[in-house]
Amino acid sequence: MFKFDQAGLIPAIIQDARTGTVLMMAYMNKEALEKTLATGETWFWSRSRQVFWHKGKTSGNVQKVREVYYDCDRDTLLIKVEQKGAACHEGYQSCFHYRLERDGSTTVVGERRFDPAEVYKKENSGVRS
Amino acid sequence: MFKFDQAGLIPAIIQDARTGTVLMMAYMNKEALEKTLATGETWFWSRSRQVFWHKGKTSGNVQKVREVYYDCDRDTLLIKVEQKGAACHEGYQSCFHYRLERDGSTTVVGERRFDPAEVYKKENSGVRS
Repeated sequence: MFKFDQAGLIPAIIQDARTGTVLMMAYMNKEALEKTLATGETWFWSRSRQVFWHKGKTSGNVQKVREVYYDCDRDTLLIKVEQKGAACHEGYQSCFHYRLERDGSTTVVGERRFDPAEVYKKENSGVRS
Repeated sequence: MFKFDQAGLIPAIIQDARTGTVLMMAYMNKEALEKTLATGETWFWSRSRQVFWHKGKTSGNVQKVREVYYDCDRDTLLIKVEQKGAACHEGYQSCFHYRLERDGSTTVVGERRFDPAEVYKKENSGVRS
């Protein structure tokens, strides 16, 4: 049904179902998508670590799936979620908190909702979920 | 500054700046990003055709860039745009007009804003921009 890439992955855009804020983008393989649909919480495949990760497992900041959309090419997912806490492992609501300005500089947008050093201090796998 | 993948590409999520609707996702290489920043309209790299495409060139449905964000991994862009007409080459406002239901069926969400057969009839390159 969906078109997975050569590595067996499909990108999943995660959007806050209530506010419309785009929270993050990560990749799912077939099994991660199945886990997501079965559990109602987002699961991804870490390309760098080559492991599954359940968003919020470490931080508690899980994403409850509200709606799943796919695009006209069937090669990208858009998942609308209820985000517990904040999505970004840097402590911000959205991973897209860096705005590129016209002069090439960057502005950090939004406030830190949590201290990553505190939230991820027990995590040893390297995946700051 | 940005992390392009092995093919030299970075995914760009395109979001309606006013409504927050996620319109589409496509890929930029370094030059497409530079064209986008220089012209204020979105340019992409077609992976299947291996050509640049200027969104709206054929259809007139250009995307005026309002803000450019990047994520904490610097490997995904989020571009907020003013969309002229509709984004999807199938005639819908968003490419994500297919909703996956719990029973595995699909619901088409939204209305067709234009007839693709009419809009793209003069296009021979294969890129329905």
